[in-house]
Amino acid sequence: MMSAHHETKPQLVLLGVDGGGTRCRARLADVAGKALGEGLAGPANIRHGLQESLSAVHGATDQCLREAGLGYGDCRIVACLALAGASESNTLAQEASQLPFHRVSFTSDARAACLGAHACLDGGIIIVGTGSIGWGIAAHQEYRVGGWGFPISDEGSGASLGCEALRRVLWAHDGLIPWTGLLRTLFERFGREGCGIVRWMSSARPRDFASLAPAIVEHARQGDAVACELMRSAAAHIDTMATKLRALGVPRLSLIGGLADSILPFLSHQTQGDLVPAKGDAVDGALHLARAEAACLEHMGSVADA
Amino acid sequence: MMSAHHETKPQLVLLGVDGGGTRCRARLADVAGKALGEGLAGPANIRHGLQESLSAVHGATDQCLREAGLGYGDCRIVACLALAGASESNTLAQEASQLPFHRVSFTSDARAACLGAHACLDGGIIIVGTGSIGWGIAAHQEYRVGGWGFPISDEGSGASLGCEALRRVLWAHDGLIPWTGLLRTLFERFGREGCGIVRWMSSARPRDFASLAPAIVEHARQGDAVACELMRSAAAHIDTMATKLRALGVPRLSLIGGLADSILPFLSHQTQGDLVPAKGDAVDGALHLARAEAACLEHMGSVADA
Repeated sequence: MMSAHHETKPQLVLLGVDGGGTRCRARLADVAGKALGEGLAGPANIRHGLQESLSAVHGATDQCLREAGLGYGDCRIVACLALAGASESNTLAQEASQLPFHRVSFTSDARAACLGAHACLDGGIIIVGTGSIGWGIAAHQEYRVGGWGFPISDEGSGASLGCEALRRVLWAHDGLIPWTGLLRTLFERFGREGCGIVRWMSSARPRDFASLAPAIVEHARQGDAVACELMRSAAAHIDTMATKLRALGVPRLSLIGGLADSILPFLSHQTQGDLVPAKGDAVDGALHLARAEAACLEHMGSVADA
Repeated sequence: MMSAHHETKPQLVLLGVDGGGTRCRARLADVAGKALGEGLAGPANIRHGLQESLSAVHGATDQCLREAGLGYGDCRIVACLALAGASESNTLAQEASQLPFHRVSFTSDARAACLGAHACLDGGIIIVGTGSIGWGIAAHQEYRVGGWGFPISDEGSGASLGCEALRRVLWAHDGLIPWTGLLRTLFERFGREGCGIVRWMSSARPRDFASLAPAIVEHARQGDAVACELMRSAAAHIDTMATKLRALGVPRLSLIGGLADSILPFLSHQTQGDLVPAKGDAVDGALHLARAEAACLEHMGSVADA
């Protein structure tokens, strides 16, 4: 009887989700790891609202199932949600019950990125995008460096670069340093008025500060003195994170995020020498964790069936 | 007839107001400068809401009149309002009509502090409180340095000090630098949790960051390495502002604001050598401007009477 009942259960499927400050990506896979469907939705950073985050997860999951030709009743979803800000929320577990998942676990986007980059082997990542964070895994220990949010942390990030650039625009405006091409370009965006920057700043979020990063990168490429100084200073912070992870025994590092390629040439030779390409991304990392959970469930199921 | 009519006009009185981010101070004086009454009300920084600011001004003025034993009908008030953020508002003039003043002019709190500190003679001030700003007057020119607001400006201020201290708390938490007494003390305020700092930061205003400054000052006094580094770094920014004002021909400087005394020992010998005590404060500066306006009105009145 137990065995017959077991065979009628809907199939276990795996869902990995990477939910960041600008978008939420999801992938559905079978327990062997074969991709069944993908989905994309809006921001899912928990710090900016748990409901918005969970609704993005829901939307991305709907897309996955549609692409896989499955309904929620056809499968039992074992999900791992890697959400930016997940390490700061105490209310995740109780809210998770509203999601149509058989099992759900949460982790941070940085940890999932690390597991994905090194296929669950020892290694570390440094994310350089709107924010910045380092994560390392070595000898069954996990380490975090930075990533506590702008302006008290996230050194070397796009938000931090944008803020430091505006500081220098105002220094030039006040006659403390000479104007450069970068500073003039940025000042023009604000109608060449210090007050324009102040007004903008009153509602600016980290991603707004980070929106200035491409101009900094571009001017650094052309040799702009201030842009190069900003990139070097950002890279020095990333070097510090890399040095720390190395000292903790993390054997290899991957640099990921929207600014990774731009900052690479400014990193120390030692950091550059430690870098390896990422094998996978945070969705892969989340799927690894979902697979481990599913294996555990199947083991428990077979024990119960025995 | 004209002359008789002139004698029945209510007396001209002067009102000087210094409205900052934490409180609003006002003083009423007769045209000879004799104080008639004082008043105190809540925050009046225009950046945080024009209505709140004007209502604080109204409240402080009510107190002045009460203390002077005057009603609004007994006098014609020539007011000068020195309000933080006044340099960024375009809507001041049109809103001023709701205030019960015969004449009203606006200026920034920094400019009024400068006029007050040097009794309208050439000189400069650097304010070091929640924010920081430099203002100088020399040979009929006026100069501003900094003061564009945290986090893109206001280097050396209490808000900036607090932010940099929290950055170092998280560095120590992540193992990047050693713990010190200051860092432990601050970390305890947040329940010894990085996430506690992140939650606090999500709604922290400049004055909240600045609320950490007294602990930094206190630990610097005891020789705490990080506290001393933070104070030296803040002082270096103030030195830069002082150097700039000196280069512009500003002959003497006064250091004012809640952190002035604490930062003084960390300033360069050159900056310290340029400092003179302030003769008066921003309320005095605003009263100077109100008196000039009243003199102009009386002159016009006497011309009309002639």
